[in-house]
Amino acid sequence: MIYIAILGHGVVGSGVAELMRKNADPIARKAGIPVAVKHILDIRDFPSLPYSELFTKRFEDILEDGGVRIVVETIGGLNPAYDFVKRCLLADKSVVTSNKELVATHGDELLAIARERNLNFLFEASVGGGIPILRPLDQCLAANEVYEIAGILNGTTNFMLTKMIETGMSFDDALALAQQLGYAERDPSADVDGHDACRKICILASLAFGKHLYPNQVYTEGIRQLTPTDVKYASAIGRVIKLIGRACKREDGRLYAVVAPMLLPKDNLLAEVNDVFNGIMVRGDAIGDVVFYGRGAGKEPTASAVVADVIDEVKHLSARKYLFWEPGEEGYAIPHDDAESAMLVRVAAGDKQAVTAVFGQVAFIAGDRLPGDELAFVTPVLNEKELNGKLAALPVVSKWRLY
Amino acid sequence: MIYIAILGHGVVGSGVAELMRKNADPIARKAGIPVAVKHILDIRDFPSLPYSELFTKRFEDILEDGGVRIVVETIGGLNPAYDFVKRCLLADKSVVTSNKELVATHGDELLAIARERNLNFLFEASVGGGIPILRPLDQCLAANEVYEIAGILNGTTNFMLTKMIETGMSFDDALALAQQLGYAERDPSADVDGHDACRKICILASLAFGKHLYPNQVYTEGIRQLTPTDVKYASAIGRVIKLIGRACKREDGRLYAVVAPMLLPKDNLLAEVNDVFNGIMVRGDAIGDVVFYGRGAGKEPTASAVVADVIDEVKHLSARKYLFWEPGEEGYAIPHDDAESAMLVRVAAGDKQAVTAVFGQVAFIAGDRLPGDELAFVTPVLNEKELNGKLAALPVVSKWRLY
Repeated sequence: MIYIAILGHGVVGSGVAELMRKNADPIARKAGIPVAVKHILDIRDFPSLPYSELFTKRFEDILEDGGVRIVVETIGGLNPAYDFVKRCLLADKSVVTSNKELVATHGDELLAIARERNLNFLFEASVGGGIPILRPLDQCLAANEVYEIAGILNGTTNFMLTKMIETGMSFDDALALAQQLGYAERDPSADVDGHDACRKICILASLAFGKHLYPNQVYTEGIRQLTPTDVKYASAIGRVIKLIGRACKREDGRLYAVVAPMLLPKDNLLAEVNDVFNGIMVRGDAIGDVVFYGRGAGKEPTASAVVADVIDEVKHLSARKYLFWEPGEEGYAIPHDDAESAMLVRVAAGDKQAVTAVFGQVAFIAGDRLPGDELAFVTPVLNEKELNGKLAALPVVSKWRLY
Repeated sequence: MIYIAILGHGVVGSGVAELMRKNADPIARKAGIPVAVKHILDIRDFPSLPYSELFTKRFEDILEDGGVRIVVETIGGLNPAYDFVKRCLLADKSVVTSNKELVATHGDELLAIARERNLNFLFEASVGGGIPILRPLDQCLAANEVYEIAGILNGTTNFMLTKMIETGMSFDDALALAQQLGYAERDPSADVDGHDACRKICILASLAFGKHLYPNQVYTEGIRQLTPTDVKYASAIGRVIKLIGRACKREDGRLYAVVAPMLLPKDNLLAEVNDVFNGIMVRGDAIGDVVFYGRGAGKEPTASAVVADVIDEVKHLSARKYLFWEPGEEGYAIPHDDAESAMLVRVAAGDKQAVTAVFGQVAFIAGDRLPGDELAFVTPVLNEKELNGKLAALPVVSKWRLY
């Protein structure tokens, strides 16, 4: 029998506890040995649960129990999760986490501790919920040089954008609907401002390129400014607006990393990823493009990914496997000003000459259902500093990057 | 240094040899130790290759070389691949293969030998080319009960169907084009008659459900009978025709397994998988639907998947990992007659009453560009025996299953 402990009995933690009970037999068969939950840390009591006797409010009960070989962290956030996870590793317990903020911020340090002590630190559930992406990325693409990772990494904003695109709903109405359906939290900023997608692209890029990309190195824009009119303009040029997290490796070894609403061509497979689904595209030299697609969040898929990591750690107790990257460094990601972009730009009507004066001849976008009191066009590809310099001379209503 | 040998220097085998040379450094880093090709078996000579000294025509040179720990089989077909692979395993060499016919036919036996001798037998490249699917299926879905696997598993036929759908091309013209572009072989029967897709769904189902499903247990229909008119009828009811391999686990523990052209709803993500791409959908209890998408064939993606397996075997020499299933048995798959299907049926015009006499009231399909001299309708869901019994009374032009 292998004993594990769970830190935090919220949505994911309770899902893990339930799955460990419900699927105990297949889990034992897969792991080669029975696996049981010994402690669950939570500040609350759950007297009516069939496993209420497992709860403790003292982290030390877990830390000091030498019988616990694996700890599952599902508290979320940095504090106290970071401290708890680090102390578990230092106490020679392998760790599984679903906490993307923790991995995106401190993954390099925690992976280094795990490696030093011959432990495992796995976090498949931190990206793409139940979609298997980190292990395939690490293992199956071993023979590839990966150039780019791009994805729709946040289900909440993708649900909102799908409503805005399909029904012309405003941002506010789409957010209210997402909150009503339980997809968005009361404070939606982690989703709508792009922070969640930013953490996920950091984890994906760190693994794919072998060096830690930190959240503060990624230029991040959310979807608050998007309007139904922007959506219509995108459609008029055969594109769809999606919140994309993207990291590309440049020839000089540095990364270009960004999270922002982008206009995808309609025949790009990510353009077909709708509602709360996530899609992640990996581009490698030998493999070409591979896309992973599925439900990016939710209690059951996420808990299922955590339990799969637990099974893997049971199979590899004291034999470190998988997943490693080096610490990052300043200057690893290029400054956003140096990125090359083309943008769809809307300006007030009557400024055709001003636009031409700045950009030369451009094709203005026409269409039936577009507003008559403004102009829109696509800029040439320029570096963002130059592009923004030129746009400063115009009465810009909105501007969105093309993918 | 770990030495490997390659059996067969065809498209995939030469791709593996090239990748092992080109990416020797990253491969050594990933594997933890340098890996080199020591022998290549082929009946031909390749005097102008930079590694021409590695070639041998005697299989025994490889079998009897105790320095070779891992053998890559890329000969294809059953004979002599089956004999060679079995003897390599019995000589305590781990094996990697891209040979789907071999795995679909003898996977259970070869996996059992590998397990007995603490060796690895991996075959990621046998399904989906470079798309990582077998290992994610095995590992990341460990905590899931899988209900169904369905996919577009053959790139050649998917390319042909895409042409037939998008440009109204006939089967013959689409085949000629596929041959011209090198996607189809001169004898295209393995592709167009569904045998290739059948082997792949056997491998996927064997792994997902833990018991060997043999090719002769899968009802298999190809795409030779499909016409542009069928494609138009599908479109008239909002569907797209794709060649689908599908295996579903029933409540009684038996499988329903089929390869056939099927009419997918247009909003099904597999409906968006076009050209030579493959898409594989896995449906599990906790995870929901997950789709893997990418280039299903081609020298480089396939070789890259083989090399990833080699790296994995180097990391696990003498420590068996991953991938196992039990031998199958007669009666494991239900007879096709017992399957439940709805079909889109075309009959000669003027038989409306005959149709109604057999099926009761059905909605006849109307549309601008459909032929005027026939009728088409969708049957209710019935078991295939009953359905075919009813259809025997009608002058059926064609009939296609709905997914």
